[in-house]
Amino acid sequence: MKNVPFKGIIAYPITPFHENNTINLPLFKEMVEKLILSGSHGIASLGSAGVMPYLSDEEKEAVTEATIQQVNGRIPTLIGVSNLTTEKTIHHAQFAEKAGADAVMIIPMSYWKLTDDEIIAHYDAVASKISIPIMAYNNPATGGVDMSPALLKRLLEIPNVTMIKESTGDVQRMHYLRKELGEDVAFYNGSNPLALAAFAAGAIGWCTAAPNLIPELNLDLYKAIQENQLHKAQDIFYKQVELLKFIVAKGLPRAVKAGLDILGEESGYLRNPLKPLTEKETEELRKILNEIRY
Amino acid sequence: MKNVPFKGIIAYPITPFHENNTINLPLFKEMVEKLILSGSHGIASLGSAGVMPYLSDEEKEAVTEATIQQVNGRIPTLIGVSNLTTEKTIHHAQFAEKAGADAVMIIPMSYWKLTDDEIIAHYDAVASKISIPIMAYNNPATGGVDMSPALLKRLLEIPNVTMIKESTGDVQRMHYLRKELGEDVAFYNGSNPLALAAFAAGAIGWCTAAPNLIPELNLDLYKAIQENQLHKAQDIFYKQVELLKFIVAKGLPRAVKAGLDILGEESGYLRNPLKPLTEKETEELRKILNEIRY
Amino acid sequence: MKNVPFKGIIAYPITPFHENNTINLPLFKEMVEKLILSGSHGIASLGSAGVMPYLSDEEKEAVTEATIQQVNGRIPTLIGVSNLTTEKTIHHAQFAEKAGADAVMIIPMSYWKLTDDEIIAHYDAVASKISIPIMAYNNPATGGVDMSPALLKRLLEIPNVTMIKESTGDVQRMHYLRKELGEDVAFYNGSNPLALAAFAAGAIGWCTAAPNLIPELNLDLYKAIQENQLHKAQDIFYKQVELLKFIVAKGLPRAVKAGLDILGEESGYLRNPLKPLTEKETEELRKILNEIRY
Amino acid sequence: MKNVPFKGIIAYPITPFHENNTINLPLFKEMVEKLILSGSHGIASLGSAGVMPYLSDEEKEAVTEATIQQVNGRIPTLIGVSNLTTEKTIHHAQFAEKAGADAVMIIPMSYWKLTDDEIIAHYDAVASKISIPIMAYNNPATGGVDMSPALLKRLLEIPNVTMIKESTGDVQRMHYLRKELGEDVAFYNGSNPLALAAFAAGAIGWCTAAPNLIPELNLDLYKAIQENQLHKAQDIFYKQVELLKFIVAKGLPRAVKAGLDILGEESGYLRNPLKPLTEKETEELRKILNEIRY
Repeated sequence: MKNVPFKGIIAYPITPFHENNTINLPLFKEMVEKLILSGSHGIASLGSAGVMPYLSDEEKEAVTEATIQQVNGRIPTLIGVSNLTTEKTIHHAQFAEKAGADAVMIIPMSYWKLTDDEIIAHYDAVASKISIPIMAYNNPATGGVDMSPALLKRLLEIPNVTMIKESTGDVQRMHYLRKELGEDVAFYNGSNPLALAAFAAGAIGWCTAAPNLIPELNLDLYKAIQENQLHKAQDIFYKQVELLKFIVAKGLPRAVKAGLDILGEESGYLRNPLKPLTEKETEELRKILNEIRY
Repeated sequence: MKNVPFKGIIAYPITPFHENNTINLPLFKEMVEKLILSGSHGIASLGSAGVMPYLSDEEKEAVTEATIQQVNGRIPTLIGVSNLTTEKTIHHAQFAEKAGADAVMIIPMSYWKLTDDEIIAHYDAVASKISIPIMAYNNPATGGVDMSPALLKRLLEIPNVTMIKESTGDVQRMHYLRKELGEDVAFYNGSNPLALAAFAAGAIGWCTAAPNLIPELNLDLYKAIQENQLHKAQDIFYKQVELLKFIVAKGLPRAVKAGLDILGEESGYLRNPLKPLTEKETEELRKILNEIRY
Repeated sequence: MKNVPFKGIIAYPITPFHENNTINLPLFKEMVEKLILSGSHGIASLGSAGVMPYLSDEEKEAVTEATIQQVNGRIPTLIGVSNLTTEKTIHHAQFAEKAGADAVMIIPMSYWKLTDDEIIAHYDAVASKISIPIMAYNNPATGGVDMSPALLKRLLEIPNVTMIKESTGDVQRMHYLRKELGEDVAFYNGSNPLALAAFAAGAIGWCTAAPNLIPELNLDLYKAIQENQLHKAQDIFYKQVELLKFIVAKGLPRAVKAGLDILGEESGYLRNPLKPLTEKETEELRKILNEIRY
Repeated sequence: MKNVPFKGIIAYPITPFHENNTINLPLFKEMVEKLILSGSHGIASLGSAGVMPYLSDEEKEAVTEATIQQVNGRIPTLIGVSNLTTEKTIHHAQFAEKAGADAVMIIPMSYWKLTDDEIIAHYDAVASKISIPIMAYNNPATGGVDMSPALLKRLLEIPNVTMIKESTGDVQRMHYLRKELGEDVAFYNGSNPLALAAFAAGAIGWCTAAPNLIPELNLDLYKAIQENQLHKAQDIFYKQVELLKFIVAKGLPRAVKAGLDILGEESGYLRNPLKPLTEKETEELRKILNEIRY
C-alpha cells in the first residue's frame, strides 16, 4: 500500500483568537494537547474547522509550527495548505514539510470553477515540490468544486496523492471509491453525520472536529467498527448523531466554540464576520450535550 | 410494537406484458413463484417495478388477485394502491384487503404538489376505510413530493400507518427516522444502492426488485447484518453494488427485463412508451452480471 | 411557417366539480364562455389547471366535447391529451381531433424517467395517428422529465409537432429555442411569472390560467408587447406579477378557485386530495387582488 | 434617490499578468482605456473578471490605483473590495475611497456560510468606515452564499448601501427587487445571458466583462432599451447571446483572454491554476465571434 500515515479518528482543532483578533496560540496548543490526550489517532490543523482561509500567510505558518511542536511526534500530523493560487499552495506545502508535517491536505479551492485539467495540473505542481503524501479533499460546499470519482481516480495516479477525504455527504461516492479504486485506496470520511455509513462502506478514517467536544463517543465508534460489532456501532452512533448534525449545520468553528463554552472550557474568540451562536442555538446545543452525557 | 408484517428482503416482481400489450399473468405468477422459492421474506406487487401507474383499474385488480393466489399465504404480501385521487386510492386499498393482502403501500402521488395537510387527509381517508396496515412510501423521484421527516412523524400517528419506506437515497433521513421516532418505528429501505448504509442505520427491511436477478446476494446481505457481521456484509454488498446502481439508473422494469433476458429466463414485453435497453446498455448489464457470477 | 393556430393569450379554464365529486359541466361551460368574452385568443382545456390527470377517460372526453361545443369555432381550441402510456395518449388525441379540436397539447408524462429515444417514439406514434398539430409541452415540475433544447429540436422534426410550450421557468431556455431553432419556431410561455421576460425573448403566446381572474391585465401585457411599448409592458407586468407568483406557488386549481370565490363568482368544488386554500392563504390572495383593482 | 453613481454599461476589465506571474499594469491600463473609449458608462475593477481573490493585498492596491489614475474622472469607477474577513474588507474599502473610487462593490464571501445577521454586521461594519456608496453583490456561484430578497431589503437600510447587483441568473429575483423595494432601488444585472430580461424587468445597469470583446453590441442593447424599442433590443440581444453564454460558461478571465487573442489584441497571461481555453474551446469562440462580426 502507498504511504498512508492516517487511520481512525483524525481530530481537527479550531483556531481560537484573542479579543484583539490575533491568534491565541497558547490556547490553540492546549486544544491540540487535549485532543492527543483523549486518544485521537491524528491531528489535522488548518482545516475548515481551523478557519484556514481567514488567516494570513504568517498566521498559517505560526499555526503549522505550533501544531507540530505540540504534537511532537506522538501521533501523525496533517496540515491544510489549500489556496486559490498554485503558487501559494506550493509555498504552504513546502513550509509544512519543512516544519515536520506527516502529510498535507489540499482542496481545490475554486473561485472560478476549475476544469478537471486545471485541477490535475494544480495538484501535480504541488506534488512535484514536496515529498510527503497529500490528502486530496473533496467538499463542494466549502471548496466550490465537486471532484467527480473519475477525477479523483486521475488524482491518485500522482505518486504522492495517496489519500482521499470525501465530504459530499453522499455515501454512494464512497461506494464508488472503494469499488472502483480497489480496497487499497485510503479514503476518509469528512462528513460527520455520515460517520457510521462511511465506516460501513469501508472508510479507514474519520476527519472530524467532534473530538473537541465528545472524543470518547468518536473513538468508541471506530473501535466498534474495528471489532466488527455493527449493532454496538449503531448504538454508539445514534448517541452522537444529533451533535454531529448540529455542528455541521451551524458551522464547525461557531459550534465547537459554543460547545466548549458549555463544557466550561476556554474557547477564545471567533474572527469576524463569524459570530457566536445565538442564545437559542446555544440552548439547543446545551440540550444535545446534556442528553449525551446522562 | 405495531402491526408490522414485514422484515428482511421484500421482493418486487415486475409486470410482464404480452406482445399485444395485455398483461401476461401466467408469466407474472411464475415470476412471483421464483421470488418465493429463492427465499424472499415478502412479495410486493404493483410497485414502481410493477409499473402500477401504467395499468388500468382492471389490470391492477387482476395483478392483485394473481399475487395473493400465487403466494397463497406462504409469505406476507404487500400491494401498491397509490393513485392521484383519494377516491381511487380507497377503491384499490379496499380491493387489496378483500383479496387478502397483508398490507398496502401508498405513495402520495402528486401532480399538483400536495400540502402536508392534504397528504395527511389523504392517508387518513384511506386508513379509515381499511383495517390492514399501510406502508407510507417516500420517493420524490417517482411520486413528485418529498415528505419531510416531520410529516412522516405525523403520518405515523394514524393507527394503521405502521411502516415507512424511504427512497430518497439520503441515509440521513433514516438516521432521523430512527433517532426521532424511536427504535420501534419500522422503516424500510427503498433505495437499492443504499442497502448496506440503510441496514447499518437500522432499517428492518429492504424493498427491492433486485431478487428478480440476484436473490442470493440480497438475502446474504440481510443475513450478515442479522448476524452482526459488518465486514462480511461489506464484502457481500460490494459484490452487488454495481448491479444495484445499474437497475436504478436505467429504471427497474427495463433493467430487470434485460437482466432476465441475459439470464435466459422469460421476461415478456414492456408497455409503451417504455422500451428495452439499448444494445450498449444490455452489454454493460451483461458484464456486471458476469462479474457477479464468477 | 408551419401550422400554428395560436398566438397571444391562451386561456386555461379549471375543471370545477360538484360536491358529489362529478364534474360540473354547466359551470365549466360558463367559465369557458367568460374566458372567450373577456377577449382570450385561445382556449386550452385539460391542462394542469384543468386537473387532467385526476380525471377518468370518460370525464376527459366530456370536458373535450363541452369545450369545443361552447367555443363553437369563435377562437381556436387546444386539448390536453397527455397520458403515461402511448396507447392512451393516442386514444385521447384521436378523440380530440374527431371532436373538432384545433390542436392537442402533449407533455411526456413520466413515472419512469423516459429516455430521449422513448420520448421521440412516443410523440412519433401519436403524431402519426392524427392530422392536427401538436404542442409539445416541457414542464419538469409536473411532468417529471426535463426535455433538453436538443430534444425539443428533434421533436420539431416530426411534421405535426409545430409548437413548443416552455414552463421550466428558465428564460434562457427560450433564448435557446429562438436562437437555435430560428425565428420561425412557435414557442409559448407556460411560466406565469416569466410572462414579461418570455415576451421580451420572443414568445408568441402565453399559456395561462390567470385570465380566469385578471383577463384585462393579461391581454394588455400582450398588447403593449405587440405595440413595441416596453416601458408600458413593464408597468402592466408589475401590476400583476404578485398574482402570477401566487397562483403558481399555491397550485393553479386551488388558487383560481379561491380567486373566483373572492371575486364573487361561482367556482365549484375541488377533487380530493386537493383542498381549498387555507384562510390565511385566502386572505393573502384577497389582498393581492384588492391591490390590483384599486 | 440615493447616491447611485452608475447606470448603463458598467465594464469589467480582466487583470492581465506577465509570464512571471506579476500583474501587467501597463497592459491593464490599456484595457481600461479601450473600455472607456468604446463608450462604457462605468469601469469596475477587481471583480470576478479581474480575479480579485487571486491577488495579494499589494496587488489589489496597485490595480485600484491604476484604475483611478487611468480613468481620471472621465466616467465613474467601482472597485471590488470583498474579503473573507471583515477587517480586510474594511482595509480595502478605505483604500479605494482614499484612492478616489466612486463606489465599492462587496459580495459576502463565504467559506463558512454566513447567517443573515453575520452578513448585515459585515456590511454595517464596512459601511460605517467609509462615506462612498456600496454596491451589494449577490452571486451564490462565486460567493458561496445566496442572499435572499428579504436580506437584500435589510441591507438597503444601511445608508450607504445604495445599489444591488444580482447575479443569480433568476430574473424573478429582479421582479422581487423592483416590486418589493420600489422603483427607486437601483438594481444592476450581473448575469450576462439575462441582459435583455433584466433590462425588461427594470435593471438600470448591466455589470459585464463583455465590452472587452463586443462593446458596440452591449451599448446598443442599452440604447434600444432606453428608447423603448423592444423589438430592436430583441434583435440586438440575439446577436450577442451566444457570446454572453460562452464567456460565462468558460469563466470570464479565460474567455475574455481567448477572445482578445482571437481579435488580435494583447491579452497577457493567466495566473495559475487558471489555464488558457483548450484549442477546441478557442475554435468555438472564434466561430461565435465571426458570426457576430459578419
